[in-house]
Amino acid sequence: MTGITFPPVAEPDEQARREAVARHEQLTKPAGSLGRLEELGIWLAACQRRCPPRPFARPRVVVFAGDHGVATKGVSAYPTEVTAQMVGNFLTGGAAVNVLAGVAGASVRVVDMAVAADTQRAVSEFKVRRSSGAIDVEDALTEEEASTAITAGRTIADAEVDSGADLLVIGDMGIGNTTPAAVLVAALTGSEPVAVVGRGTGIDDNAWMRKATVIRDALRRARAVSADPEELLRVAGGADLAAMAGFLAQAAVRETPVLLDGVVAGSAALVAEELAPGARQWWVAGHRSPEPAHLFALEQLSLEPVLELDMRLGEGSGGVTALPLLSMAARVLVEMATFQQAGISGPDIPLPAQD
Amino acid sequence: MTGITFPPVAEPDEQARREAVARHEQLTKPAGSLGRLEELGIWLAACQRRCPPRPFARPRVVVFAGDHGVATKGVSAYPTEVTAQMVGNFLTGGAAVNVLAGVAGASVRVVDMAVAADTQRAVSEFKVRRSSGAIDVEDALTEEEASTAITAGRTIADAEVDSGADLLVIGDMGIGNTTPAAVLVAALTGSEPVAVVGRGTGIDDNAWMRKATVIRDALRRARAVSADPEELLRVAGGADLAAMAGFLAQAAVRETPVLLDGVVAGSAALVAEELAPGARQWWVAGHRSPEPAHLFALEQLSLEPVLELDMRLGEGSGGVTALPLLSMAARVLVEMATFQQAGISGPDIPLPAQD
Repeated sequence: MTGITFPPVAEPDEQARREAVARHEQLTKPAGSLGRLEELGIWLAACQRRCPPRPFARPRVVVFAGDHGVATKGVSAYPTEVTAQMVGNFLTGGAAVNVLAGVAGASVRVVDMAVAADTQRAVSEFKVRRSSGAIDVEDALTEEEASTAITAGRTIADAEVDSGADLLVIGDMGIGNTTPAAVLVAALTGSEPVAVVGRGTGIDDNAWMRKATVIRDALRRARAVSADPEELLRVAGGADLAAMAGFLAQAAVRETPVLLDGVVAGSAALVAEELAPGARQWWVAGHRSPEPAHLFALEQLSLEPVLELDMRLGEGSGGVTALPLLSMAARVLVEMATFQQAGISGPDIPLPAQD
Repeated sequence: MTGITFPPVAEPDEQARREAVARHEQLTKPAGSLGRLEELGIWLAACQRRCPPRPFARPRVVVFAGDHGVATKGVSAYPTEVTAQMVGNFLTGGAAVNVLAGVAGASVRVVDMAVAADTQRAVSEFKVRRSSGAIDVEDALTEEEASTAITAGRTIADAEVDSGADLLVIGDMGIGNTTPAAVLVAALTGSEPVAVVGRGTGIDDNAWMRKATVIRDALRRARAVSADPEELLRVAGGADLAAMAGFLAQAAVRETPVLLDGVVAGSAALVAEELAPGARQWWVAGHRSPEPAHLFALEQLSLEPVLELDMRLGEGSGGVTALPLLSMAARVLVEMATFQQAGISGPDIPLPAQD
């Protein structure tokens, strides 16, 4: 059934990882005292297969935009038109992710995979249709559309890596897209529908109940195909989610580290790990969103989020907010003096008993 | 008894705070969807008395260095000499805080308040003595030294604000300094000695027991004077802690926002809030350290840390790691487009019931 296969994913480099661990013990601080920053630096060294790692030359945010048939069912606080309007906002630099990326030193690319309206040519090269299907009653995509969308994500990852991107941040934009995301997570983690329903960008109790109903119905359809990741994306995902999964799988194939964002990126990551087992070793979870499905996804992927700031926007905002910390983690390994260089005494071992 | 008094601390501006809350509702994102970043931006607007706030022009880390008599009692994994060696490391840019500040766009100043060895003239202008007293058996400072140290911190805050610093990060350097920090926190929060003893930069079980004994003995001396913040700093603090408390109180008097660091800065903050009530409104806790006393201090100050990355270094490292997030919070309010500017639809209210 599945037509698309990814080559095996390599592991980050064990030798570089060990060198980074050893280097952290020589730097002028107690070993381990920078906590998570040390772990992130060690991971980056392993990803880059060198210690110290290179600070990022071209960190890049890629936002996948798409509409969803379920948005007409009252599962979001916003109308579908907002997706296309926000694509325009990304292009003129007025969205949150543009501002956050500016501070973090990253550039932003937006890709229209299935926005319900026409968008500018620069972003619609990979568009497969206008809006994915309403997954509670129909398939999100045809077989050809699913294959095309996954391949698009893969092509985009290749293009970004070939253009020099050395750190990718994945983002999403699409009114209603936390609904298919929750369905994908529930299907792959064996969770009940009510356990994965969240408030998205901010819905009231009535919308929450409508969303729970849509997720329940879509999940019934999804479970039948949950063993086949491409089929799952086709039946219960959407063109944006399929592209994101292809993008994440290919980024790992290309040995390029990725910062994940919220629940939508997290759901695509769960599927990408099925498409390309081991891909998760190339990812860091930038932020944990309040969406319950995000927690399930991160737990299944064994990813510990760097930040927990109660953000629930998407766009890659949670990923890019963690980017400065990743830059710090790299630069610590590059720039800090060693005990020897600075002529500093190490720990007293052992201390005489005194009082 | 107390000789030093601070003028009343003004409240951050309520009008600018309200303007920032309203502006967040007009920006192209669901209101509240940037979570803590929104709250930080609102706080900055209130501190600067303007909305949107100005992005930082001169963020500045000030590291207060000092040795402590208790360090000879085996309460730290490192020998006292390291404090002076690290002061040199700060000056040549090889320490963690230098690297982290570089990424965050901040500059670093180090001040020797009571290092046990001679340090360079550039940093010893305010030095009051060589090492503060061993607080388990003697006062940390004389009355004159305590007054001089608090005044030094105050003078340094004034000088930094007068030089254009618009965001301060407070840091510490001193082998053994988590011991007096724990004593100050226990004295001001009514905690038991064993509840506040932490592992500092990384001590073993035997050192932990020595540290607990020192804290118990020092706390007995501290409790007698805990109602008088200047006396408390004199008896159970040290010159570095006294300067930090004076610095934090004066920064608030000068209406300048401060990012706090770990347990040492947190203990000084607790005392500063006693010296200048209301000062805490001008502070944000950058990071929560694993030191138990830090949690008590932040709870008493009603400060919620931005980051929790298991860092335990001091130097201002935890504060400066949060600085990029504060910069993001400011720039979001400055640079993001409003719904009107971007021609974007707001939330659908109310949605018709559908299914």
